[in-house]
Amino acid sequence: MSSNATVTAEEISSLSFSLDQFFLIIMGMVVYFMQCGFAFLEAGAVRSKNVTNILIKNVMDSFVSGIAYWIFGYAFAYGDGGKAQKFIGASYFASYDMPMDQYASFFFQYTFAATAATIVSGAVAERCEFIAYFAYSFVITGFIYPVVTHWAWGSGWLVDGHDYGGDIGQIAYQDFAGSGVVHVLGGVCAFIGAALLGPRIGRFQKGSNVIGNLRGHSVPIAALGGFVLFFGFLAFNGGSQLTISSEGDGAAVAVSVVNTIISASFAAFGSLIINRLHIFGNTWSLLVTINGALTGMVAACAGCNQMHPWSAAVLGLFAAMSYTLWSTVMKKLNIDDPLDAVAVHFGGGITGVVLIAFLDKDDGILFNWDRKSGLKLGWQFAGLAAIIGWSALFSLLVFGILKCFGVLRVSREIEDKGYTKMAYENESFTIENEYQDKGVHETPETSAAVRIRNGTPPNGHRTILTISNGTTPSTVDGATKM
Amino acid sequence: MSSNATVTAEEISSLSFSLDQFFLIIMGMVVYFMQCGFAFLEAGAVRSKNVTNILIKNVMDSFVSGIAYWIFGYAFAYGDGGKAQKFIGASYFASYDMPMDQYASFFFQYTFAATAATIVSGAVAERCEFIAYFAYSFVITGFIYPVVTHWAWGSGWLVDGHDYGGDIGQIAYQDFAGSGVVHVLGGVCAFIGAALLGPRIGRFQKGSNVIGNLRGHSVPIAALGGFVLFFGFLAFNGGSQLTISSEGDGAAVAVSVVNTIISASFAAFGSLIINRLHIFGNTWSLLVTINGALTGMVAACAGCNQMHPWSAAVLGLFAAMSYTLWSTVMKKLNIDDPLDAVAVHFGGGITGVVLIAFLDKDDGILFNWDRKSGLKLGWQFAGLAAIIGWSALFSLLVFGILKCFGVLRVSREIEDKGYTKMAYENESFTIENEYQDKGVHETPETSAAVRIRNGTPPNGHRTILTISNGTTPSTVDGATKM
Amino acid sequence: MSSNATVTAEEISSLSFSLDQFFLIIMGMVVYFMQCGFAFLEAGAVRSKNVTNILIKNVMDSFVSGIAYWIFGYAFAYGDGGKAQKFIGASYFASYDMPMDQYASFFFQYTFAATAATIVSGAVAERCEFIAYFAYSFVITGFIYPVVTHWAWGSGWLVDGHDYGGDIGQIAYQDFAGSGVVHVLGGVCAFIGAALLGPRIGRFQKGSNVIGNLRGHSVPIAALGGFVLFFGFLAFNGGSQLTISSEGDGAAVAVSVVNTIISASFAAFGSLIINRLHIFGNTWSLLVTINGALTGMVAACAGCNQMHPWSAAVLGLFAAMSYTLWSTVMKKLNIDDPLDAVAVHFGGGITGVVLIAFLDKDDGILFNWDRKSGLKLGWQFAGLAAIIGWSALFSLLVFGILKCFGVLRVSREIEDKGYTKMAYENESFTIENEYQDKGVHETPETSAAVRIRNGTPPNGHRTILTISNGTTPSTVDGATKM
Repeated sequence: MSSNATVTAEEISSLSFSLDQFFLIIMGMVVYFMQCGFAFLEAGAVRSKNVTNILIKNVMDSFVSGIAYWIFGYAFAYGDGGKAQKFIGASYFASYDMPMDQYASFFFQYTFAATAATIVSGAVAERCEFIAYFAYSFVITGFIYPVVTHWAWGSGWLVDGHDYGGDIGQIAYQDFAGSGVVHVLGGVCAFIGAALLGPRIGRFQKGSNVIGNLRGHSVPIAALGGFVLFFGFLAFNGGSQLTISSEGDGAAVAVSVVNTIISASFAAFGSLIINRLHIFGNTWSLLVTINGALTGMVAACAGCNQMHPWSAAVLGLFAAMSYTLWSTVMKKLNIDDPLDAVAVHFGGGITGVVLIAFLDKDDGILFNWDRKSGLKLGWQFAGLAAIIGWSALFSLLVFGILKCFGVLRVSREIEDKGYTKMAYENESFTIENEYQDKGVHETPETSAAVRIRNGTPPNGHRTILTISNGTTPSTVDGATKM
Repeated sequence: MSSNATVTAEEISSLSFSLDQFFLIIMGMVVYFMQCGFAFLEAGAVRSKNVTNILIKNVMDSFVSGIAYWIFGYAFAYGDGGKAQKFIGASYFASYDMPMDQYASFFFQYTFAATAATIVSGAVAERCEFIAYFAYSFVITGFIYPVVTHWAWGSGWLVDGHDYGGDIGQIAYQDFAGSGVVHVLGGVCAFIGAALLGPRIGRFQKGSNVIGNLRGHSVPIAALGGFVLFFGFLAFNGGSQLTISSEGDGAAVAVSVVNTIISASFAAFGSLIINRLHIFGNTWSLLVTINGALTGMVAACAGCNQMHPWSAAVLGLFAAMSYTLWSTVMKKLNIDDPLDAVAVHFGGGITGVVLIAFLDKDDGILFNWDRKSGLKLGWQFAGLAAIIGWSALFSLLVFGILKCFGVLRVSREIEDKGYTKMAYENESFTIENEYQDKGVHETPETSAAVRIRNGTPPNGHRTILTISNGTTPSTVDGATKM
Repeated sequence: MSSNATVTAEEISSLSFSLDQFFLIIMGMVVYFMQCGFAFLEAGAVRSKNVTNILIKNVMDSFVSGIAYWIFGYAFAYGDGGKAQKFIGASYFASYDMPMDQYASFFFQYTFAATAATIVSGAVAERCEFIAYFAYSFVITGFIYPVVTHWAWGSGWLVDGHDYGGDIGQIAYQDFAGSGVVHVLGGVCAFIGAALLGPRIGRFQKGSNVIGNLRGHSVPIAALGGFVLFFGFLAFNGGSQLTISSEGDGAAVAVSVVNTIISASFAAFGSLIINRLHIFGNTWSLLVTINGALTGMVAACAGCNQMHPWSAAVLGLFAAMSYTLWSTVMKKLNIDDPLDAVAVHFGGGITGVVLIAFLDKDDGILFNWDRKSGLKLGWQFAGLAAIIGWSALFSLLVFGILKCFGVLRVSREIEDKGYTKMAYENESFTIENEYQDKGVHETPETSAAVRIRNGTPPNGHRTILTISNGTTPSTVDGATKM
């Protein structure tokens, strides 16, 4: 009987481990699907001439990340760093000698790395060179992001924190699902990328405060992206519990998911109302709604497992304000971020990292204002500073080098015509060739639309036809009257 | 050793509970994704001028529901109602004092509430005021739906039923995944909403039996919605088992999923054949196919866990007939339901609630015709009557009040031009402004299409160009020849 | 206490079984969602005139499969075949007498059958009769595919293999997730279907090597399909472990998922580079990227659970070459495969089946070159030959019969105008009728585009307007310049 009982205990332990791996795999799969969400949010929010480009880029993204994270990323993040362990890991390169039981964790962490890289693509859309996408994605998922996860989630200095002794004990940086680790990092890289690239042609006019609204081309495509991201974020935040088999895991995952939705709900409403009051006048905007909700989800990452739902509601309202603030700041700085990626991820991320020090249900400042909670806030700022500094430094390096070599930004000709148009000209044969030969075939939106806009109707006769160059004639910013 | 065995038993119980929470969370996530499905089914089936509107609405939907269900809904549904327990719950408002281990259940139930509210939006599409969407969504997810779930799934009078003593024992209302609770309820609210709003302009002509086919604008968008809903429905019906860890749970979930697919398969074919025989002539229609399949899935809700697969096949054929019947009835009543939401959800729902009394493999009338199965059928009718009465009463109230205050239906001007068009005019700056100033820029489909239709070609020259104002030039009803 | 221990052991066994069923159900659900992926990859890659048709077809696909697999398929695959057990099963027709605990397995296997059938539709797109779709889907999922799964996964001769005695022991055909069973089979049927149908009008010119690039109409729609398929493939390959509760299951599933992504990553890059070097010149192509990645995933099926990640990388590069090779072969053979389905599934499938004999980490030829690994390779070829022979024979029969009866290919008129156009003419009333009566209304892309192409501008005045007949004006092949 004794041996029987022992076997049973082992069986339970093995079963629990299987369950945890299952949990990581299915949650990781849903996070992986967020690649589809980012792709479509971006594809809908760019002009149609750049849709093909942004989609190929996003398809390749997860594969570049796969290679980079496999060869380097996981090793830096969760490998054994020896003496440098506080700072960086260094084993399991190309999964060499990696124990079988770490593959589930590898997969889950990979999907997060791919997310961090994808954030950037929104900010550099419509003018970034193809090769530059590959380069920065590789460096972010292979090095910049993994090192930060080593600090905050692996066995680095942020997760260790400091032992203050006495009643206080260990205090460390808190970032459950990565408000700082993923989103602030991605947001900073996005900021640097957008700043070094410069704005799209026509976005900002010198000597004018008027901002060119280079409208996205398709509401449904952007909305699809939003819905997929909402779905994916539940796995992103819920899955960050990493295990489901231990007592309390289920509750923690469920609370995380619920708080994510509540924060998103209040952030969406907050953004909509702020937007309605101040900027667009009497309209509701879809992209603002989606981005607002996403900012709420981003802000929830840091501590959705450690908050009361009403705290999540408060957090969502702050996230809405942060989103609007950073969106405005970017415009004032004349930095062109087509997707508001910086406002969503950096704005939402810092809100989450800072506010969890106030809203943590156990030792948040609102619940327990003492030296301990003060130190906690200090560590949140320390973590933020470290993440911002690290990611700014290396993204400056990456984008700077790309700029020096002249492979950061596309040529003016390509930017004007769009990638698609340029690609056409290189094709050997298309069914439309016959007509093209007569010099009149053009991609609809770059030809007809532009000419109509210039007051030179294409056929010499005045026409008010404008071409529907997307799933709908309206635009992504296209708001709807109340 | 005794203590060892005890610990083990506790561990198993804890592990089982973790597994059940995991099950609820992942199934709830997939049900949540159905919001995307409804959004795209609707977006594809409306005219392109209303796409932006319907999508913002659907994005906001889940967030309105999140707030309403968090503050009120779950409390009414699953709270402790004290003396009123048979009728309504009343604790856990805003999740106050809610035990941590209920959050997984809260999340799962929330996704169902959001579904119930979304059903309505299809029926009121293209003419309902924005603020009215918010109002009815809030009331449905905060009050109307939760009370019914308290009756049928919580601890109310429908779930208790009546103890007839002797051989018969307890008989109660049976509704596994909500044919009645979710879909009949949603269908009734949809009916009332559509009836009070009145038909879209051009839908019904006085003194004529001709029905204006206000075609949806995009086949792929509607099809996307359909596919996402098919995927989501598997979680909707399978997840309704609520647990997976107990013996027989896995089989029950699997049977539910299989029956859902079989019912949908036969319903899809049934609808296609009925449609082909009677209405459209020599064509296959996509929307009819999708709606037929959905009706089969809706009908399967009530008892997919308690049916033989061949019963699910029979059920699917009845669902197809019910769908066609109710779709026809709505047209005869001159009530305009752009998505056939009433036919799908009300038609499918009552089919499911009634037929499970016949098809239940243990004590359905077909298998065991006696007083017990007769009483069972009686309880199904009682449940239906209660759900229909309750939801009709309160949706009449909600839509009635909105109508009285003049905030139910959009102005004629907005309906004609579409929300998108109206919104344009309020925007401060767009890249198209230059052209707009000359008074000739319009959103493609509201301008060119309308004018072409009126025989006044926009440029004074006859043109047969019609603008492709969607992802494809064809329509959602756009059938395909066999 | 003894009885207590026994109960515990039973409980663990029951809990493990529940967990395994949960695993099969959720993985099966994600595989089911691949139907959406195939539908959109195809819908984006065909011309817009055929979008409605291809989508209705794909919606019906999973339902035809549901009926066929329920009534016949599962019985042939996993039923008890008695004396014919080596070759075919024969019980559980229409799930008659099927034990409740097999429903999860039934569902999972059904989703694979539906996938096998869907592969074909890409190759026969744009010219296959509607009724032919139904017929071959029914036969593939009801008979052709189930028999092969019986051989290789059930209790047939391929899974039994042969006992060579001594050190070698049992050797059998190895095909974890179906590189051969699903994809080679689907690819062969696709080949036969495409060959018997003949190419689309305008695809191949007699006496000319120029290949008409009948461009797909929508990049975003095809990309959506790609993303959904990437997501689904993780479940397809990971889920093929079939259980998660036993020790090592979690690791095997995780390794499968990771190898699937690594193989896809290298295949995507490989295809992109091959494509860039040889065919399109200075461009990147979206469809090639997506198809390349998919080919890598297809190739990973056979042994993703038994490979080192670096082997998966090697496999991916071979998959890329196989994809390009078979795509070229098909063009040389003048067989028109609009989706490159044969290159992806047949090309990827044989690569996977053959290379696993080299790359298996335990007894692959690369690691252990001896008689055993040689025999293993032999069995892989035997399996391939059997699958190819079987599926070629019966698909020849099915498509041949359909061709004899004249219901395989649509009429020339329909193919020219597209299904959508033809369907229009049969409709009793549309809002556009007024205009239609004047004989000038046509579906945009079939009218305007064609006429413009013919140099006869529709309004008698020269116009360079071309109509955007998709979500974007660019094409699926539409590459983007680097």
